[in-house]
Amino acid sequence: MSTVNKSIIPILFFSFLSLTSFAAKSKIEKLEPGFWWVGMENPNLQLLIYGEGIGSYQPTLHYPGVSLKAVHNVENNNYLFIDLWIDKSAKAGQFEITFTKPNGKEIVYQYELKERRENSAKRQGFDSSDVMYLLMPDRFANGNSENDSVEGMAEKLNRDHYDGRHGGDIAGIINQLDYLEDLGITALWSTPLLEDNEERGSYHTYAISDYYNIDARYGGNEAYLKLSEECKKREIKLIKDMVFNHCASAHWWMKDLPQKDWVHQHDEYTNSNHRKSTLLDPHAAQVDKTQFTDGWFDISMPDLNQQNELLMTYLIQNSIWWVEYANLDGIRMDTHPYNDAQGMSKWGEALLTEYPHLNIVGETWYKNAADIAYWQKDALNADGYNSNLPCVMDFQLFFAMEKAFLEAQEWENGVVRLYKSLSADYLYKDLNNILIFSENHDTQRIMSTLKGDLEKFKLMNTFLMTTRGIPQIYAGIEILMEGKKSDGDGKMRIDFPGGWEGDERNAFSAEGRNDKENEAFNFLRKLLQWRKINPVIHNGKLTHYIPENDVYVYFRSNKEKTVMVVLNNGEAKQELSLGRFSEKIKDFTKGYDILSEQSISFSTGKLEVKGNTSMILELKK
Amino acid sequence: MSTVNKSIIPILFFSFLSLTSFAAKSKIEKLEPGFWWVGMENPNLQLLIYGEGIGSYQPTLHYPGVSLKAVHNVENNNYLFIDLWIDKSAKAGQFEITFTKPNGKEIVYQYELKERRENSAKRQGFDSSDVMYLLMPDRFANGNSENDSVEGMAEKLNRDHYDGRHGGDIAGIINQLDYLEDLGITALWSTPLLEDNEERGSYHTYAISDYYNIDARYGGNEAYLKLSEECKKREIKLIKDMVFNHCASAHWWMKDLPQKDWVHQHDEYTNSNHRKSTLLDPHAAQVDKTQFTDGWFDISMPDLNQQNELLMTYLIQNSIWWVEYANLDGIRMDTHPYNDAQGMSKWGEALLTEYPHLNIVGETWYKNAADIAYWQKDALNADGYNSNLPCVMDFQLFFAMEKAFLEAQEWENGVVRLYKSLSADYLYKDLNNILIFSENHDTQRIMSTLKGDLEKFKLMNTFLMTTRGIPQIYAGIEILMEGKKSDGDGKMRIDFPGGWEGDERNAFSAEGRNDKENEAFNFLRKLLQWRKINPVIHNGKLTHYIPENDVYVYFRSNKEKTVMVVLNNGEAKQELSLGRFSEKIKDFTKGYDILSEQSISFSTGKLEVKGNTSMILELKK
Repeated sequence: MSTVNKSIIPILFFSFLSLTSFAAKSKIEKLEPGFWWVGMENPNLQLLIYGEGIGSYQPTLHYPGVSLKAVHNVENNNYLFIDLWIDKSAKAGQFEITFTKPNGKEIVYQYELKERRENSAKRQGFDSSDVMYLLMPDRFANGNSENDSVEGMAEKLNRDHYDGRHGGDIAGIINQLDYLEDLGITALWSTPLLEDNEERGSYHTYAISDYYNIDARYGGNEAYLKLSEECKKREIKLIKDMVFNHCASAHWWMKDLPQKDWVHQHDEYTNSNHRKSTLLDPHAAQVDKTQFTDGWFDISMPDLNQQNELLMTYLIQNSIWWVEYANLDGIRMDTHPYNDAQGMSKWGEALLTEYPHLNIVGETWYKNAADIAYWQKDALNADGYNSNLPCVMDFQLFFAMEKAFLEAQEWENGVVRLYKSLSADYLYKDLNNILIFSENHDTQRIMSTLKGDLEKFKLMNTFLMTTRGIPQIYAGIEILMEGKKSDGDGKMRIDFPGGWEGDERNAFSAEGRNDKENEAFNFLRKLLQWRKINPVIHNGKLTHYIPENDVYVYFRSNKEKTVMVVLNNGEAKQELSLGRFSEKIKDFTKGYDILSEQSISFSTGKLEVKGNTSMILELKK
Repeated sequence: MSTVNKSIIPILFFSFLSLTSFAAKSKIEKLEPGFWWVGMENPNLQLLIYGEGIGSYQPTLHYPGVSLKAVHNVENNNYLFIDLWIDKSAKAGQFEITFTKPNGKEIVYQYELKERRENSAKRQGFDSSDVMYLLMPDRFANGNSENDSVEGMAEKLNRDHYDGRHGGDIAGIINQLDYLEDLGITALWSTPLLEDNEERGSYHTYAISDYYNIDARYGGNEAYLKLSEECKKREIKLIKDMVFNHCASAHWWMKDLPQKDWVHQHDEYTNSNHRKSTLLDPHAAQVDKTQFTDGWFDISMPDLNQQNELLMTYLIQNSIWWVEYANLDGIRMDTHPYNDAQGMSKWGEALLTEYPHLNIVGETWYKNAADIAYWQKDALNADGYNSNLPCVMDFQLFFAMEKAFLEAQEWENGVVRLYKSLSADYLYKDLNNILIFSENHDTQRIMSTLKGDLEKFKLMNTFLMTTRGIPQIYAGIEILMEGKKSDGDGKMRIDFPGGWEGDERNAFSAEGRNDKENEAFNFLRKLLQWRKINPVIHNGKLTHYIPENDVYVYFRSNKEKTVMVVLNNGEAKQELSLGRFSEKIKDFTKGYDILSEQSISFSTGKLEVKGNTSMILELKK
């Protein structure tokens, strides 16, 4: 495959004697991870080697500081797993691993241990100082039309079909990094870019057919490295979307599994029941729990068995390999609870052992904060479970945001939904490490929900950018992009206008946006650029007040600064008595509204806020 | 007041010298608690003494084992609080407490220390072996028409008005204890019976004007003691409804408060905001929290300040007094989170110190299990709070039950609501000590919600009586009594037919019930009588299965027995494949359905269940 990274192509040596009889059939088809690094915290490295009959070979190596600790044969003789010990004393360099058959035949693999980047272990992951931009690469921008279809990759370009591949790629993303930097985002989450060689629907790329290679149609590993470098130049953190619950039925190992239990096998096709609650439920029947975790996500997505230690080690190393190789700032784990919970705990622990400040967010799609909080690292769980997942996704708040801005205030409706959702925060271990969002690639576009209303767009984004947590927005929100879930995912995931040569307009530029879109873009840019330089929003204390008359008021405060946020979600103008907020306003006498760019005196004891309008007041003495 | 218990009327002695000048004005109007017991775990006892100028008197006493530890004067000189130490060596008996003024004037109070009932401290509270019957005494049965109106009590009988007093009383309850025993209930919770001397709406009796006296219109303390004795004869546990958040504006101390901060004072009338979430919310503004706990429940219900130590001691002793005096089996605490949380924690601890096996249930009216679970004793709370409240009310399950039986199954609807609600049980510290109910005196009657449907009644009660927790039913459910919340509480709280002489019919007897009511009554009686003798339902392990096709299946099992419950909430007949349940069915070969009284073989591997029908199968080998 054209996407194979050159550095991991095995260099094959054959002993003279065996050359003729052996060469035709025996070779190392895969050796993963294809290279590694010296100076890792964990000195252990396990290599997966795949090649016909490789199980019959005995590996040997000679390199200072590197020793062969164990060799694992499995039921399929085409696999070998070998455990290396890489001592702290080991230096970067190459060495041969020789695989010898009892009859004397040899295969030699040239293995490399690389030098790590400076301060690699100390990398700082994304955090609440960031605003994360999510995009689907196939639908964002096509920077290289030459890789739209690639030989060896089953699905070809078909931009005419909403479920087809549209040609977006990494080059396209790189082309728009200046645009994104200007918008003010500081972290980039692309949905998966690894090879997905399914025949249909591969544009979403959640069915991964190779864990070590970026899809050639996105530009391969080299393009991804370039993306990482270009992001670093702009101080944009790069987050890799990982999918361990399932691989693709087109994954190379599916044709010749190392072990039967490498994936969950069922007598007949068994779908996951998708009842994530079974994992927490003390009453759940075992058969239901098993079907949840071991059932398949989709018929084209075999369910990986993370209880298989060899596989779990493979996945852990794969994650570390990508962090180190592509200089990542974070990971997003797909369908987190569908994985084996103990396996994921080990995975998180292993990553945080290597990179204590890396951040990892799991897709914790539960409706209630308690269920979400269960999955956050160091949660106070009665069963003692520790996910080692530092960041969770606040789906409870997402569901609140989907409705809050469309409703008048009632006991539990309207802006009370936001207030009530956050009131459950006593359940979380780390309030600053929660991803908050009003939409993602799996949900209806929020601007369809908000019926394209620009005022609601502003209210919603004001909230998202000033409440606690790490805001995540989704490509196109800045131009009010809509998309209905009822149309189906493929149709909902609209191409970004201007991402393709010949597009009718280029919404990446002000000229290509209409007035309403420019107003939205400029509003969001102002908010993001302001948020970026205001630590009080990143981790200042949140204090909020019971909403009254559709108005939700809260403060963010630290030693340096106090910010008062006022969201009037109703149509009517409201006048607030400032006395109610005296514990936060203290002796501040005015506020500078960063949105209207006006200073407002508190001398009257009243604050007027227009209908459907938000204010972000930097309080001043 | 005619309701004053004779044993606490102070016996006044006056020294000869001071008689003429003093007697007219100075006397002890209240001394509470009016008597106590020897042999309590806590040797401390604090007496509240109320009488004009009593603060100027110095108390003395001489009794073996009893000493005066401290005297507390407060800002109101008409009060005195004195701390006694009652040593383990003290014997039951009477002694004089002499109050002496500097000028030599004396008042003498004859105080009594009683002997405790045998094994009083070891009393076993209500638990999951019980079914609790809730009634409102004014609306249940009138056993003594002579106390319908009582001199000195403001509100008189007015049965013609739905908000008036209808005359129900303790004698009426006692009259129906045989009926209740026959029905199969094992615990009785009456809404408050203490004196409520408000001029209007006193029938609900949640505005208490005297914490030591049962309302004369219910029969006074003697009647309550009789009720307790009659309950004991029938092994029905008696639970007292206590209200500490607020008293009545007609409470005797409201005319002459001991301290200004005895109740929460506000510059202008301030209602509670009723946002119970503020207590748990880490972001809640202090002003909102304070308004929640310190605001008044109603203008006629002054908010007691449990942070006042003298008051909190008064309330704690009042509870212990009632347990000991009336031989109680449990307490129900009204509006539990509205009280001061630390005060309630001390209260629970004090009660459980005296009575380690007593049970106390708090009204924990939250929608989410996490919020409810927070209030259960020994909950794993991040803030370290321990309520010392053993039993909580499962309002999450209540809200689920209100909807589940009316809906076809969808991803989150229909019987899935029951399944999902219970799946949050990982949050609770003690799953067997949770009160479960489909209605109470504050909610719409469940049979109005279920539109009088007898099949739904059966499904609902089957669930209530076989899932985990302590079922609570509400008077009238056995005759399908309806009542709409939209009609207002007074109208919704219908008199039990036959509770009054001259009622058109007597639904306490089979003859007075129509066929449908008798079917309901007999169904419920069968269920309750069966539940009573089946410990597997009280504390056997619950295992439940994801509902399919409107059918919810679960098992209760212990070493002795396995019960399979099948609820078909849909109209269509369903055939279940028993293979799915093999982890519970194991080698059982048949089930005896206690509802249809038929034995059903499992030999076909299938189980047929009719539409809108439940089965409770005792599994047999």
